[in-house]
Amino acid sequence: MPHARVHNFSISLDGFATGEPQSLEAPFGHAGERLHEWMFATRFWDESGSAGVDDSFAQRNTVGIGAEIMGANKFGPPEWQDDPEWKGWWGDNPPFHSPTFVLTHRPRPPLAMEGGTTYHFLDASPAEALAAAFEAADGQDVRIGGGATVVRDFVAAGLVDFMHLVQVPIVLGRGSRVWDGLEAVEDDYGIEAVSAPSGVTHLTFTRKSAG
Amino acid sequence: MPHARVHNFSISLDGFATGEPQSLEAPFGHAGERLHEWMFATRFWDESGSAGVDDSFAQRNTVGIGAEIMGANKFGPPEWQDDPEWKGWWGDNPPFHSPTFVLTHRPRPPLAMEGGTTYHFLDASPAEALAAAFEAADGQDVRIGGGATVVRDFVAAGLVDFMHLVQVPIVLGRGSRVWDGLEAVEDDYGIEAVSAPSGVTHLTFTRKSAG
Repeated sequence: MPHARVHNFSISLDGFATGEPQSLEAPFGHAGERLHEWMFATRFWDESGSAGVDDSFAQRNTVGIGAEIMGANKFGPPEWQDDPEWKGWWGDNPPFHSPTFVLTHRPRPPLAMEGGTTYHFLDASPAEALAAAFEAADGQDVRIGGGATVVRDFVAAGLVDFMHLVQVPIVLGRGSRVWDGLEAVEDDYGIEAVSAPSGVTHLTFTRKSAG
Repeated sequence: MPHARVHNFSISLDGFATGEPQSLEAPFGHAGERLHEWMFATRFWDESGSAGVDDSFAQRNTVGIGAEIMGANKFGPPEWQDDPEWKGWWGDNPPFHSPTFVLTHRPRPPLAMEGGTTYHFLDASPAEALAAAFEAADGQDVRIGGGATVVRDFVAAGLVDFMHLVQVPIVLGRGSRVWDGLEAVEDDYGIEAVSAPSGVTHLTFTRKSAG
């Protein structure tokens, strides 16, 4: 049975996945790129990078994935819905290479990009969006791509089978926090932690009832 | 030069050091003892316990410590100040074995216990309390014993030289959070992480300017 998975989702020690304010110039607000430096240093990101612990986790991101779901805040800066020409942060050939569902209260027609990515814009509940993504994934898994609001909404709805968080040793103090509303998440998931030489700690959450 | 140190300070994934509500029956609120199970399993706590990674960290708690500072919420349940007979959670022979400063807006006379612990009740700023504790410690280090409010107040005031937090893989959702107000703490501390087979992750913060 296909699974819904979260991968390479970076958070600060205090649980923020982005800083604030988010803008065209600063997609992660005052966090800048600090939450993702661990990933830029891996072979997953750059072929001259490291093939160590961090890379082993990072590489899982794409394996067996047939579709992605992301929140509106991942697709563009605030008010991108007002710009009919906005096509996401990732240029003409986005790294998703699969049907990619963007949750927004202001949907627009599908947008086919190069390399196999087609953006579908949905005003839907997590369960409805996941059903659509599973159908599009054609038997493969679905990646829940973030941001923090989307991850916690899908976890709270009991829809996430596997989650990989990467805790970076900085304290952001403000932004969008992944933990809010997830009290007692340990009842539903086996949780493991492993710290890497880079300084980050990988946290995996495996749903206890997952097949 | 003597240092101010935090040891064995357990927090949930979302940064809470206690749950809520705190009471005589439930000193840690809905967290129960879950934040401290890792420590109960060590030789530091029980001579039949493990002498592994967790124990190596736990044992540091007492080495070179000449005094402790704790907040009112660590000393007793809410409103303990109304009970002239309240002598702390730890019985006649408390585990501090040194001068122990309790921060409270309603001080009372010092209380000498067995085993070397004398409680001193102070209505003082962090800097004033630390000065008093250093004097009492007579050249040894001072332990900042918690709870979360005290730890973050002392860190925010630039008074903590070393901090050992233990992140337990549970999400409490509510309670007293150690991170609040500590944005950019990484500018002042070298931060290391190591996960242990027990499932907890030890985080150490070493002040960059510490001698």
